Amino acid sequence: MTPINLAEKLSQISTHWDPHVVADYNDNDIMVVKFQGEFPYHLHEDTDDFFLVLKGEMTMDLEGASYPVKEGEVFIVPKGVTHRPRAEFECEVLLIEPKGVPNTGDIATAAAKPRL
Amino acid sequence: MTPINLAEKLSQISTHWDPHVVADYNDNDIMVVKFQGEFPYHLHEDTDDFFLVLKGEMTMDLEGASYPVKEGEVFIVPKGVTHRPRAEFECEVLLIEPKGVPNTGDIATAAAKPRL
Repeated sequence: MTPINLAEKLSQISTHWDPHVVADYNDNDIMVVKFQGEFPYHLHEDTDDFFLVLKGEMTMDLEGASYPVKEGEVFIVPKGVTHRPRAEFECEVLLIEPKGVPNTGDIATAAAKPRL
Repeated sequence: MTPINLAEKLSQISTHWDPHVVADYNDNDIMVVKFQGEFPYHLHEDTDDFFLVLKGEMTMDLEGASYPVKEGEVFIVPKGVTHRPRAEFECEVLLIEPKGVPNTGDIATAAAKPRL
């Protein structure tokens, strides 16, 4: 039960698309992650997906629409909505998902979500 | 389903301790709020409380401990833990609580949590 400095946590991550858990909020993982390049299109049947851009800019591709998401902006992908985050340049993101949710929508390809 | 600019939302708020809902994540309210002064000590029996300082600095007082929480820092108050946020100068915060949770811990004194 101490303050968690997100920039300090992010400084320990050198990989992309590799979310690390920094805190717990009820049954959710509070994670930081670096994006660069394109993630696969996927969906989560049972949960919304929370993104807050902490540094840089990402794009959220949906089927039929794309949104730039800039530093200080939140984007919520509602459950069941197919989406793909991408970033031309490295982008730092706060991500919230319920514990146990595969970040790719598929347990076979999901990241490990280690704790920092 | 569009990006939500937190600074733009905060620019519409002129009151303190008056959280406004800007998005929904599963059964949670994603809120922005301005802190200045001292909030009452309280607790939430059934939920953790999520704070992310977006601008400025706050202090989280617990029973027997106080923590400065700076810009870019997250503080999670676990359920059942008595706490009091305070801020000498105006501080902007992203707050997450399950829908229906009184921000004071008591429905009689809770803020309305209007939507922006």
